[in-house]
Amino acid sequence: MTPALKIVADTVIRNIGQLVTVAQQPIEDASGPLQIIEHAAVAVHNGTIVWIGRDDIHGPELLPDPATGPDGITIIDAQGVVVTPGFVDSHTHLVFAGDRAEEFHQRRAGISYGELLAQGRGILTTMKATREADQEQLISLALQRLRAMSDYGTTTVEIKTGYGLDLETEERCLQIINKLNALEEITPPEYVEVRVVPTFLGAHSIPPEYRDRRSEYVKLVVEKMLPSFVGLARFCDVFCEREAFTLEESHLILERAKELGYLLKVHADQLSPSGGARLAAELGATSADHLDYASDSDLDAMREAGVVATLLPGCSYTLRTPYPAARRFLDHGLHVALATDFNPGTSYCENMQMMLGLAMSSMGMSLEEALTAATINGARALALDDQIGSIEVGKRCELALWSIQNYHEIGYHFGTDLVNSILVRR
Amino acid sequence: MTPALKIVADTVIRNIGQLVTVAQQPIEDASGPLQIIEHAAVAVHNGTIVWIGRDDIHGPELLPDPATGPDGITIIDAQGVVVTPGFVDSHTHLVFAGDRAEEFHQRRAGISYGELLAQGRGILTTMKATREADQEQLISLALQRLRAMSDYGTTTVEIKTGYGLDLETEERCLQIINKLNALEEITPPEYVEVRVVPTFLGAHSIPPEYRDRRSEYVKLVVEKMLPSFVGLARFCDVFCEREAFTLEESHLILERAKELGYLLKVHADQLSPSGGARLAAELGATSADHLDYASDSDLDAMREAGVVATLLPGCSYTLRTPYPAARRFLDHGLHVALATDFNPGTSYCENMQMMLGLAMSSMGMSLEEALTAATINGARALALDDQIGSIEVGKRCELALWSIQNYHEIGYHFGTDLVNSILVRR
Ligand SMILES: [Zn+2]
Ligand SMILES: [Zn+2]
Repeated sequence: MTPALKIVADTVIRNIGQLVTVAQQPIEDASGPLQIIEHAAVAVHNGTIVWIGRDDIHGPELLPDPATGPDGITIIDAQGVVVTPGFVDSHTHLVFAGDRAEEFHQRRAGISYGELLAQGRGILTTMKATREADQEQLISLALQRLRAMSDYGTTTVEIKTGYGLDLETEERCLQIINKLNALEEITPPEYVEVRVVPTFLGAHSIPPEYRDRRSEYVKLVVEKMLPSFVGLARFCDVFCEREAFTLEESHLILERAKELGYLLKVHADQLSPSGGARLAAELGATSADHLDYASDSDLDAMREAGVVATLLPGCSYTLRTPYPAARRFLDHGLHVALATDFNPGTSYCENMQMMLGLAMSSMGMSLEEALTAATINGARALALDDQIGSIEVGKRCELALWSIQNYHEIGYHFGTDLVNSILVRR
Repeated sequence: MTPALKIVADTVIRNIGQLVTVAQQPIEDASGPLQIIEHAAVAVHNGTIVWIGRDDIHGPELLPDPATGPDGITIIDAQGVVVTPGFVDSHTHLVFAGDRAEEFHQRRAGISYGELLAQGRGILTTMKATREADQEQLISLALQRLRAMSDYGTTTVEIKTGYGLDLETEERCLQIINKLNALEEITPPEYVEVRVVPTFLGAHSIPPEYRDRRSEYVKLVVEKMLPSFVGLARFCDVFCEREAFTLEESHLILERAKELGYLLKVHADQLSPSGGARLAAELGATSADHLDYASDSDLDAMREAGVVATLLPGCSYTLRTPYPAARRFLDHGLHVALATDFNPGTSYCENMQMMLGLAMSSMGMSLEEALTAATINGARALALDDQIGSIEVGKRCELALWSIQNYHEIGYHFGTDLVNSILVRR
């Protein structure tokens, strides 16, 4: 008989009906493509998972942290439910003021987005409202949205700027995004327990004051914004599209960003074959997103370069365009991530369970593929897969506790919130 | 100056941001296709709406009911939100035990429904579990589902039997459905404030013990079940389909039901052109439901006979089949209703907001058409449009209070619960 392993822990989650680890390496006692452990427990110390396994008497001996004394182990009873990694929503535009409900209904009645833009509407409506909003208002709106996201099981949210489109407002938005991060101490008091990842998307649209001198705006982004925002944003993203930034402009911006140490993302090939996916591969971007018009060779290039393909079904749902053909990306051997693309124009939805549902109903993904896409592959799309996205020893404890006993209910039982709460330990 | 109108009321709901009446007659101070009153109030007496209008000083003088004394008027502050009629979910199969999540995933992996049936699975799994469940268990499951429905804004739910398929269990299920009705005094203590409408669907499937003598089962339905269940069910429904009951069998059952005073419904033309829609028109059914394969002349016959067309997008979502072409039904001048079809095989969803969203995203319906379909036309599909489905003087106070200020947010802001609570006065 081997002596019991002794592990220092401050928290133990016991009586987990199914622990859906989504581990990328084989785990003892786990089975299936999602590496599930039935009747499991998870031990945590200082927010890091230190042990997972079957919740029975043959587990390790858990020792309290000497720093917190002999009563220092908190026991949480999961009451037999399903536990998964918290969702990683790797593509959102969450900080903005105003809404565009009227525009949504007008577009459905036949007014084109081009017409709206010509009237100074579309994204320009949001830019105006965001520039005019004060910091308190923007934070309050963002917190409300983050709260909804975490209610539906999300523990990590990437947030892009891109509704300021001037030096001052882009910087203000980046500061707000950083403030929203539960990892930061400056977080306001009504904060939400989510990890926030900031992305600079100054190249979201040419602002109206630069309409006839777009190269000057690109210059502003490259020479002023990018250098000033180092340390405020983990990623630099570009909307590479005929309505937004050309391939050349995108290249200029992303290349400079890379030199400055930003990780890269690209809004690529959404409305036309823009070359964005190819560019993402060339520059070694972490992800390329949308990709409706990416070619087979683009996808091959992405795979070779290790670029994650992020698919955003909320846009198809809103714009009533064809859903992303997930099978094609999977068959090309790409890591596919799912995200909400939460934004006021084309995907006003905080709920990752909805994206999972659409992926299974309209994109041909299996439950296992969809859950992988919404957790570990979301983490890959943020280059955080060493820290989050699965339940493994050494990773952070950022979990979703569901109200179901078997993960097979996900997708099958649809349209209602099946997550009970998130469970995050810092 | 005219003297103020004096109205006896026991409840007044004030400070309603938008009262979406969905009235079918022009209403003072209301505008638009949904007859919306901005900044409105509603007065109620004994559960009946006695006055609606703008919430200002020119409203009527409200008098307390002498029976409840001078302090008898309850004032409810709606805090500026949207108020609509509660959803009328006119097609569900809510009373059953067990679930069919495994089957759901197997069907996605390529096993056909025919194969499952041959293995005694599919609907037979649910029949078996329902027959074996005791009354307490069935009620507890049903209440849980009704609670979810009301959380998402539904105030009326039609519930079909059809998982008993023998005299005893069909009767037990009908008794349970009646017990669930908030209008009945026998309702269990943890009841939900919803109106329940019972439908007898003994002709849901041929039970296995009658597989080789189906005419005997039809005889059982016609001669035993239908006469015994008079008073227990408002509707008789038949699944008229090649996998279920033939046109002749359906005709026999529905004709007898009509003689006995049941109102009629038909599961019609869902998987093939079964003749169900035509039969519904011939017999003057209240609604025909599904209708994927109904022909243009079937739809004309339905319109002439005043049969409501009930569309059920949850099935398309689950089975990944084409969504009902709502425009076609609307263009034929039919009243279109939307319902969840909540059931364990093809639509495991309690949430009418989800159906509204699918109708707008995938069925070509406008918000106004979808809201009409989910409220007053649901009431039409239950022949209850004289009592519920819209907010008008003389109708019952069965409302949904939303968490939004403008009804245009519905459909635009999707995938999360926008209803705050239901408000029902008896
Ligand atoms: Zn985006
Ligand atoms: Zn049905």
